[in-house]
Amino acid sequence: MMLEEGLYTQQKIVETRSGLWNCIKECSERGLVYSVRWAAEMLAGLKSPNTLDAPFSSTPTAELEEDTTTTNERILEFKEETTYTLAKAYFDCKEFERAAYTLQHCKSSKSLFLRLYSKYLSGEKKIEEEADTVMSSIYPASSASRELYSISETLDSVQKQGNQDPYLLYLSGIINRRRKQYAKAIDFLLSCVRKTPYFWSAWQELSLCLDSPEVLASVIRRLSNDHVMTKVFIVYASHELHQINSSVYEKLAEVDSLFPTSRHLRIQRALLAYDTRDFDDAEELFEVILKSDPYRLDDMDTYSNILFVLE
Amino acid sequence: MMLEEGLYTQQKIVETRSGLWNCIKECSERGLVYSVRWAAEMLAGLKSPNTLDAPFSSTPTAELEEDTTTTNERILEFKEETTYTLAKAYFDCKEFERAAYTLQHCKSSKSLFLRLYSKYLSGEKKIEEEADTVMSSIYPASSASRELYSISETLDSVQKQGNQDPYLLYLSGIINRRRKQYAKAIDFLLSCVRKTPYFWSAWQELSLCLDSPEVLASVIRRLSNDHVMTKVFIVYASHELHQINSSVYEKLAEVDSLFPTSRHLRIQRALLAYDTRDFDDAEELFEVILKSDPYRLDDMDTYSNILFVLE
Repeated sequence: MMLEEGLYTQQKIVETRSGLWNCIKECSERGLVYSVRWAAEMLAGLKSPNTLDAPFSSTPTAELEEDTTTTNERILEFKEETTYTLAKAYFDCKEFERAAYTLQHCKSSKSLFLRLYSKYLSGEKKIEEEADTVMSSIYPASSASRELYSISETLDSVQKQGNQDPYLLYLSGIINRRRKQYAKAIDFLLSCVRKTPYFWSAWQELSLCLDSPEVLASVIRRLSNDHVMTKVFIVYASHELHQINSSVYEKLAEVDSLFPTSRHLRIQRALLAYDTRDFDDAEELFEVILKSDPYRLDDMDTYSNILFVLE
Repeated sequence: MMLEEGLYTQQKIVETRSGLWNCIKECSERGLVYSVRWAAEMLAGLKSPNTLDAPFSSTPTAELEEDTTTTNERILEFKEETTYTLAKAYFDCKEFERAAYTLQHCKSSKSLFLRLYSKYLSGEKKIEEEADTVMSSIYPASSASRELYSISETLDSVQKQGNQDPYLLYLSGIINRRRKQYAKAIDFLLSCVRKTPYFWSAWQELSLCLDSPEVLASVIRRLSNDHVMTKVFIVYASHELHQINSSVYEKLAEVDSLFPTSRHLRIQRALLAYDTRDFDDAEELFEVILKSDPYRLDDMDTYSNILFVLE
């Protein structure tokens, strides 16, 4: 048995680290830049294990066993590697339609994700462009809605055939939320985060589907309550809904013990102080954050509100 | 001995492929998205080897031997992996100053490159922003020029200490060209492409330093004349300088035999036809390109000129 230190064992730290690295790899392969940023920040804030050499036993055996689906996916990904690399290169240069077109004959879930995500982003771009034209008031974002519909059709059809790829579930979540189908979106996003717990954008989408403390409570009941990410989510979603109570602070303290220098958690603490109108504390916390991260842009609107109130 | 097929042996194909993959890895790690795109396109256009299993002897031994510098760099990169990943994540979210700040205490050449390149891009952003203000006519891009100066100081100092990292040489090339120090820029860029021959942005920068056929000829004399990239460059730079002769077509044919379906080379052929006012041929070539790559944006200005002339 390993020695426990506070809440989290050495094994837990090592597992969390490998989970975050894996998330960074998967998300950067898929162009999910904001999730990469979040996971990289969390990794930088993670507690150091006593030793860098993780005992082999700390690798969950589940990771070593592959089902047929995973094996098939890997074979497809290997076959499609050159095409995928080209499509991803176009994607990174913001050539979304070109990326989608390049992947048109690819079969792996990874390729399908990048193809549909590229289409989605190119649709978003069109909405922005159409919003600037006179016609937008008459035909609001017509081509973009058609695009959304066609993405949704494709997702439905592969998921009916049993495809449970977490990134495709995430896309289904986004699209259902866009169509105000919140209950369906929540189902998809819960399936997604159960498979890829460190994929932050999925948690953010999930939080955007919640319009009341009751819905939040029902979502929490459907999550594994001992996973660190469930706790991170509870803190985040409670702030978003302005539902702060002592249990939220408890969760934050628990997560803090695993990620003692996490920027994300420091910001959460500052935002909770702001929510509870504890402006002096909030200002102090923001100052500490900005000392180590002076070029931060996110949440600076809240900081300037605080300074304004304290003037 | 291996069987030759035309100009390029099996070994050459395998070596080129591994060179391109390596370039894609290095450039995407460094945020050099346009070079990744170019290398990925070339890889997609490369001739297939007869067998996917390259004999071990085809791996140049040079790749297996590492000098002390390389070993030291690898140790530093390993130590800085988490910090680098975080900085790269900020970079990918276009938070350039935040990326640079994150890397401030890092020592590897890779980290130094991303730090300076981030500063450079943030300076470019400022120039764009300042160009929109009234003050720009009085103080043209002042903060950005100071930024360039400070990047240049840092590069000079590490290079004086013997640092010959190709990506840092590339940055020195960019900065010297920006300061109209063309001869110095050419020296830096030649040193760069000798070390990383598939790094396309360096070749493009080099081409931008040439203002006459004489300078082009002198640069070509300083390049290894049997490397495929020298030939690719000659074709590209000759088009840029509008210096087309039969030797350029010969070079293009030689490279074509190694990259039979390369989009880059097809475009080069179309541009050469346009340069020599062979508009019918040029139009036909563009049509073939657009059939397989309908969402292409680069060079479409030339295509519309061609259509206009042929009307």
